[in-house]
Amino acid sequence: MEFRVTAGGASGPRAGVLTLAHGPVETPAFMPVGTQATVKGLSPAELKEAGAGVVLANTFHLYLRPGAEVVRSLGGLHAFMGWDGNLLTDSGGFQVFSLSALRTVDDGGVDFRSPYDGSRHRFTPEGAMATQAALGADVVMAFDECAPHDCGRDYAARASDRTTAWAARCRDWWREHVDPARQALFGIVQGGVHPDLRRRSAAEIRSLGLPGHAIGGLSVGESHAQQWEMLDLLDSELPRDKPRYLMGVGTPEELWEGVARGVDLFDCVFPTRVARNGTLFTSTGRLNLRNARYRDDPAPIEAGCPCGACRAGFSRAYLRHLLLADELLGLRLNSLHNVVHMLALARGIRKSIENGRFFEERRAFRLAQALPESERP
Amino acid sequence: MEFRVTAGGASGPRAGVLTLAHGPVETPAFMPVGTQATVKGLSPAELKEAGAGVVLANTFHLYLRPGAEVVRSLGGLHAFMGWDGNLLTDSGGFQVFSLSALRTVDDGGVDFRSPYDGSRHRFTPEGAMATQAALGADVVMAFDECAPHDCGRDYAARASDRTTAWAARCRDWWREHVDPARQALFGIVQGGVHPDLRRRSAAEIRSLGLPGHAIGGLSVGESHAQQWEMLDLLDSELPRDKPRYLMGVGTPEELWEGVARGVDLFDCVFPTRVARNGTLFTSTGRLNLRNARYRDDPAPIEAGCPCGACRAGFSRAYLRHLLLADELLGLRLNSLHNVVHMLALARGIRKSIENGRFFEERRAFRLAQALPESERP
Repeated sequence: MEFRVTAGGASGPRAGVLTLAHGPVETPAFMPVGTQATVKGLSPAELKEAGAGVVLANTFHLYLRPGAEVVRSLGGLHAFMGWDGNLLTDSGGFQVFSLSALRTVDDGGVDFRSPYDGSRHRFTPEGAMATQAALGADVVMAFDECAPHDCGRDYAARASDRTTAWAARCRDWWREHVDPARQALFGIVQGGVHPDLRRRSAAEIRSLGLPGHAIGGLSVGESHAQQWEMLDLLDSELPRDKPRYLMGVGTPEELWEGVARGVDLFDCVFPTRVARNGTLFTSTGRLNLRNARYRDDPAPIEAGCPCGACRAGFSRAYLRHLLLADELLGLRLNSLHNVVHMLALARGIRKSIENGRFFEERRAFRLAQALPESERP
Repeated sequence: MEFRVTAGGASGPRAGVLTLAHGPVETPAFMPVGTQATVKGLSPAELKEAGAGVVLANTFHLYLRPGAEVVRSLGGLHAFMGWDGNLLTDSGGFQVFSLSALRTVDDGGVDFRSPYDGSRHRFTPEGAMATQAALGADVVMAFDECAPHDCGRDYAARASDRTTAWAARCRDWWREHVDPARQALFGIVQGGVHPDLRRRSAAEIRSLGLPGHAIGGLSVGESHAQQWEMLDLLDSELPRDKPRYLMGVGTPEELWEGVARGVDLFDCVFPTRVARNGTLFTSTGRLNLRNARYRDDPAPIEAGCPCGACRAGFSRAYLRHLLLADELLGLRLNSLHNVVHMLALARGIRKSIENGRFFEERRAFRLAQALPESERP
């Protein structure tokens, strides 16, 4: 893995190139989420054409179904899902801790029951790394404890300490078993919305000397102001020469705000999830297909959009019909549009950094988004 | 509309070319069903690439949602759904009569309530034709009464008589309002499983001098033996110089049997419906992805299949995973495979007729399909 910053200052927005085992990724980058080894509704060919450089998949889900050994026996996750670009697997920490009633934590790891069949399982830092090694993604994540947003400072401190201890164990396993040229390990900074805990976590995780850093435990219920405060402080706590990944974020707005605070990589299910409900991104804000004004609107979602749905000329009226009729093609086309929009947005943000126009363009973005839906083209 | 028989004898299988307003269709042909102006899960580009010559859509559904006037205002059904091949709309008769508890019939038409919102509507022969004219398909169907399979002879006779009377009214409306070069009207033969009623209906419908003939009221619960008996007798009752469309049929098996009895056109939701449940067609029979034997099977659905799923090399194991994980991509790929299979099957049947090998190949097909799933490649 190699990371090269190609534009930007001593803090704040920067452009770069992250070279992983399956090719270079221009940053800032949005990484579409393929939880179960598929980005919901989209084919690998569509993701490739849209310019996706990294696709996410989820260790927790794939461990349970179809099982990491099944994936390994079929040639690993790239071959399994037919994706020859880069893959990143998160460690399963976030999902395991989301099970609340079904899991118990100790310093060694987490016991949990499968939400599918109630069977018992245990994740440990070493186990999560071994599972990720079997899956074979280009970037793997340390096993962390993601504390709930409203857990209180003590709990957040304990979760952060445990995350550091587990990250060290992940690193040790990774150093012993993994070829770092094929699989890069990122550590995860925790600490909730507590500035001192975030600083301490960042210092501890950076001391492990891992190839990249992720910011976890945000976008879990805190306010935007809190999220931005944490990102602002981490911008100076994390080393500039390594990539930074803000986990589970974001929306178009959050991409601009994250990049403004030095983040390079983003992932979020939001674009595909809201697409399936008829909320579509445009450069002038969101459009909700359920709105009766689109009933006989012949326009594409957004003129000039490079996505297959807009290029083929499918009208808002047709997409609205597909949505109201619960038709699969609507889910496909809407998802494609939003993912292409996010990938194009990240490229546009990158270009604005290269041109030294990031802050003007962020302002223009905010103004355009502020138009009410009834006044948009 | 022009229909030319290019191979075949005085009865039984024949090959032909049906030229409609949006291009020629080689027959026998399978017509994918796009009930709500979309073939479930597939894009128009995929249907085009698969060689679909005609796609079906449903008058009843589109009349209720989004409304025929909305479709007309957006340039008609071709423009609305982004399909520049041929379209056929059925008249809505089958769907209206399927509403049983929600409708009442009189000789003038059918009153019914919308299954979506309970609103009241009336379909008449003239109304069904006007709605189909607004939608703008290349082939439209007369408004018929499709009697239930087990309704008894008297009911079947009355429904057949009404179907004839309505077909005459449809023809009159069509002659007065429609350019026959842009929209061809097919009459529908009814009569249940009663040979004399079928003969009478065929004689009445053919006397109307319409461009094509459809066989309705089959595949509604009768046995295969009954279906084939009706098709055998209709093969000599319907004129050879006009296309014949067996409505709502069929499976791969039923395509062979229908063509054997002189049918040219088929439509059925079966290929896409069962695909969504993991049942996939191959030249050696059906494969059920839920079967545990496919859990780590690296083979494509069928080697050599021209569909996008097989060509991209998606394994049975991955498709099984997508199915069990309820993933949209699985619905897409499975539907694509089955529709491509049906279209390729129809082309293969056509070629066997041209080569004078139809009956040998039907025998080979039956033998291949008889293999148990555990012994298939």
